[in-house]
This record gives sequence, structure tokens and C-alpha cells, in this order.
Amino acid sequence: MRDLSGPEQRLLTKLYEGLVGGQRASLAESITLVETQHPRKKELAQVLLQRVLAHRTVQEGRNGGKPVAFRVGLSGPPGAGKSSFIEVVGKMLTGRGHKVSVLAVDPSSCTTGGSLMGDKTRMTELSRDMNAFIRPSPTSGTLGGVTRTTNEAIVLCEGAGYDIVLVETVGVGQSEFAVADMVDMFVLLIPPAGGDELQGIKRGIIERADLVVVTKSDGDLLVPARRIQTEYTSALKLLRRQSKSWNPKVVRASSHTGEGIPEVWAELESYRDAMLASGELQGRRRAQQKVWMWSLIQENVLRHFQNHPSVREALPHLEERVTNGAISPGLAADLLLKDFASPSS
Amino acid sequence: MRDLSGPEQRLLTKLYEGLVGGQRASLAESITLVETQHPRKKELAQVLLQRVLAHRTVQEGRNGGKPVAFRVGLSGPPGAGKSSFIEVVGKMLTGRGHKVSVLAVDPSSCTTGGSLMGDKTRMTELSRDMNAFIRPSPTSGTLGGVTRTTNEAIVLCEGAGYDIVLVETVGVGQSEFAVADMVDMFVLLIPPAGGDELQGIKRGIIERADLVVVTKSDGDLLVPARRIQTEYTSALKLLRRQSKSWNPKVVRASSHTGEGIPEVWAELESYRDAMLASGELQGRRRAQQKVWMWSLIQENVLRHFQNHPSVREALPHLEERVTNGAISPGLAADLLLKDFASPSS
Repeated sequence: MRDLSGPEQRLLTKLYEGLVGGQRASLAESITLVETQHPRKKELAQVLLQRVLAHRTVQEGRNGGKPVAFRVGLSGPPGAGKSSFIEVVGKMLTGRGHKVSVLAVDPSSCTTGGSLMGDKTRMTELSRDMNAFIRPSPTSGTLGGVTRTTNEAIVLCEGAGYDIVLVETVGVGQSEFAVADMVDMFVLLIPPAGGDELQGIKRGIIERADLVVVTKSDGDLLVPARRIQTEYTSALKLLRRQSKSWNPKVVRASSHTGEGIPEVWAELESYRDAMLASGELQGRRRAQQKVWMWSLIQENVLRHFQNHPSVREALPHLEERVTNGAISPGLAADLLLKDFASPSS
Repeated sequence: MRDLSGPEQRLLTKLYEGLVGGQRASLAESITLVETQHPRKKELAQVLLQRVLAHRTVQEGRNGGKPVAFRVGLSGPPGAGKSSFIEVVGKMLTGRGHKVSVLAVDPSSCTTGGSLMGDKTRMTELSRDMNAFIRPSPTSGTLGGVTRTTNEAIVLCEGAGYDIVLVETVGVGQSEFAVADMVDMFVLLIPPAGGDELQGIKRGIIERADLVVVTKSDGDLLVPARRIQTEYTSALKLLRRQSKSWNPKVVRASSHTGEGIPEVWAELESYRDAMLASGELQGRRRAQQKVWMWSLIQENVLRHFQNHPSVREALPHLEERVTNGAISPGLAADLLLKDFASPSS
């Protein structure tokens, strides 16, 4: 890249110093920088990120190699009460002296711009808390782009001293899987309801959950909540374990009465301690970094393919013939790949 | 491609006529041709495949658009009794006048060559049946290569008049998902055992099952088989439905006593009839063709990337730095993609 100009250097130094000094405005501005589509600003964002990563490496070294923050993914169908849960847990944690950041992943907001206003108004108390930082989902880009930004925002939050990073997803498209791949622990929230409500849970996502929380476990919903807990406990036994040092559990909590909330967090801490002690958490992070790099490469290389002039020309017709069963997918792939390999204008 | 020579034309005509005439030797030889790594033979295989596809289109037209064959994927952990089940079901079907082909997908055989001998000796009676055709997994190639070959072998079996195509997988790696993506119905076989035995079931695969069969449901295992049936029936209720016209079920059968075998097949037929009537089966096939084309493209384009000289040079060092957390996966991907886009020697 081109060398940094004077103003650029001053901007980066100001952002970096504000960020590691724990200023929320600098953190917000830094996240805006990693979200940008502007080519030069994107380069600056990478320089900033490298500095923050170097800072983290030093901190982790002092910490005996222990991660500076605990990254938790939270997901669940609409109506599971994600915001209320995060609000109550977040307040409890800041009350205990933690610094909590909440990031959202919502690829649907790319088209609707929907969640931009949503998050802060939903978590009214937490958003006024000086030790909490809430950031809505970026409103542009592909899922790959949004998850890249979120991954980089996690690094920035950690640099700003947030020792707990909660990543919330609305469960649209593949976003839950993307979030499960960027956190230390993946928690699935489920409302005490059966049938149609549960249809909102993505296929395969239950098996990624390290903990299932049945929410709204109070009043009239206490009985159905207990039943759901029993059902999911049995179901989880039939699924393969993800980890050698942790068995996924199903617990109940009420954000309304606060009952079960400290116990839920105690489970999260047990998980973290067990996974750190066995070294699995560190190993999972290393694997995640590689997966993330390759998924970005894959997305880009495939876009490169799809934008190739000969491919663009041949694709619609070939795709139609494949769908009709007139030619085999293998032959269609061969023909398109031949087009791709040939020199383009 | 180069024009066909006289001998090549005669070979293809002989293979095609033998195949549509229902000769097993021609079918076997044709599958060997689609399995080949030889560039010219690969081209010939595609010509043959195109002729067989054209033949199928004519047949389906006569058939009112109904598929010429029912494609069923069978999977399950080691010890589920897949071979005995296929042997018993296969014999029953040929006895009813069906022509049954059995294809295996086993990417592990690419390295060990293991299943080459295995399949035929396991299904001794079926392999002697004139109305059955058993083909072991190809022993070379990537999973993508093996699934391409299997997909093309399905087309050839259908051309040879086999109206039931069973695709068996040993459940190594991602092979079960690949098989679920190439069949009309995916059946999971489960032995009546709990705990460790069930660990052999791949994460996420239960949700792909259109039918779960608890095998070995006889004698001492009858009681545990009933228990497993109840547990899986409850578990399936918690998972999302794949289809609007079918609810996955859990049934029991014994290949030893034959009990439940006709009932299992009746379930498969109900599924097929319901999915055909709603048009979902035809829609699923169209979607599968596209998925298969894109997965072949993705595999090839990514290999192209990995083989690029600059990428090969830079990758090991960058990957190490990403894993260590020294640079962000996003930056590493950017750097590698820049290498890829630059002209190579």
C-alpha cells in the first residue's frame, strides 16, 4: 500500500490511543473504519487492526497466554427474548465490574437497514451503561462482508478493554453458523413454546449450541418451559458432542424475574474454565482464524469466477439446461471452467 | 473437443446400445469410463452421458414427466447393518419385478482401496441376482470427484433400466451430506444401541433424514430398539421439517427376521408418492443439479487458487501468522487474493 500521509498517521494514532484508552467514541469510529467500502480507508483500517492485534499479543503475553476476552454468540428464533436476556445479563456483568460489548450480525439489515435503530432502543438500560458498548449490525455487504466486519469489530472491542463480547444474531440465512464460527461459546435461546414457534430454529444449529437456555421461564410459562427443557435435554443426548471437556446443557431462566440468570452465567463461566483448562478454547480460536480466512478467499474467488466475461455470457443458458436435466452438471461445470481459464478481454 | 475417430464412435455406440439394452457388462464398462482420469476418455464419457441423458428425457416424456427411477440414499454409523438391510430390501424388490442398482460412496476408499472388495462379498445373494447391479465406490479422487462420478453413475444406471437406485455411504467425512444432495430420499439407519455407538452419526445428518430406520429390531434388541425409536421420534419433533408434504418418521425393522422390511419400503413409497404429487421431488432434483454444478465449480476454482505460484509461495507463512493471531484472517485473505490476481509466471 501507499505510505501513510501525515493526516492519516495522526488519524490512526488518535484512534488507536483513544481505543486502547477505552474511549467509546474512538471504538465506535474505529468500527466505522473497518465497515467502510472506501478502498483507501479499508487500507487504513487494516493498519489500525494490525496495531490493535500487536497490542493484544502483548496483553495476552502478560496474561500467560490467556485470551483477553470471552466471546459469546447468542442466537434464537424471533420471540425468544434475546434483547431482554442480553439486557439483564449485561447489567449483571457490568455490576460485577466487567466491560461488556454487544455486536449484532444481521445480514437482513443489508437490504432493509432495519436493525440500525433497533438494537439501542431495545436495550434501553444497557445502552446508557458506561461499561457497555452496543453496536448494531453493519447495513451493507454480503454475509461474508458482514461477518468479516464483525470479526474485526470483536478485535477492536477487545483492544478497548471489553472483557466480554456478546455477538447476537437474528438467525437469518447462514448468520447463526457464521457467528458460531467466530465465538468461544455458542448459546441458543429458546422460548417455552412448541410447534410453529420452534420452526424459526435453523436446521443444524442445535448441534452447534454449547448451552441451550429456555427463556421466559416464569408464571404461566413455567410448566411449558420445564417440558421444553426435558425434551431438549433428551434430544441433545442423541446428538454428537462437540467437545471433550464439555457436555451441552439445557437450563431455564427468566429475564423478567431474574430467576436463573446468575446460574446461566455460572454455566458460561464453567464452560470457559473447562475449555481453557483443556486448551480446547485456544485450539478452537486457531481453527476459526483459518476457517475465516478460507471462507473469505472462497467468496472472493467465486465472485471473480462469476464476473468473468465468458462465464457471465455462458452461465444463464447452461444453468437452465442443467436444471432441465438436458446436460449433466459435471459437463456444465467443465464448460464454464474452460471459459474461465481462457484469456478474457 | 476433437471429433470422434471411427474406433471411438464404434466404442460409444457399442456401450450405449448395450447400456440401454440393459446389459450389466456395458453398464459396468460405462461407469468405468466416467471414473477415468484419462483426459480423452473423460471427453468420451461426457459424450456417452449426453446420449444417455437424451434417452432419459425421451423416456420421461413418455412417462408424463415422471422420473424413470427412485433414488434413495442410505447411511448410518458402522454397525447399523447397512449391507444386510440393502441385501434384504434389494432381494424383496427384485422379487417384485424391480431392477435395483446399489452404488457406494466411500471417500476413505480413495486412500485405502478398502471397499473395492468389500461390497460384493457383503451382499452375497444380491450380487448374484440378475436384476441387481452392485458397484463399489471409486477408489481415487477427492470427495467432489467421487460424488461427481456417483452422480453420473446414477444417470447410467437409470439409462440401463434400473428403476431403483440405492446409494450407500459409509459416513466418512462429508460423504453423507454429498449423498443427501444427490438422492430423492435420504434414509438413516441406526442400530438399537445408545451412547458411544451413536457417536458415529455425523453432526447435522439426522436433520437431513426423511426416514430413520432402527435396525436389528429382534430378540434381545427389541426392547432397546423400541426405546431408541421413541427417543428419535421425540427428537425429530424438535427439528425443522424439510418438506411440506412429508414428516420424517422413525420405524423399526429386522434384516434377520425380515420383520418390518415390507413396512419400511411402504414408507419409502409413501414418501415418493407424496413428494411426486406435490412436485417437491421434481423441484428437489432441479435444485440438486444446480448445487452439484456449483460445488464442482467451487472445488475447481479453489484448487486453481491454491495452485497459483504466488499463492503457494505466500500461503504457509501467512496461514501460520493467522493461526497465531499475528495478523487478521481478513488481511491475510486480501494479501493472497492480490497475489492471485497478479499475473503469474
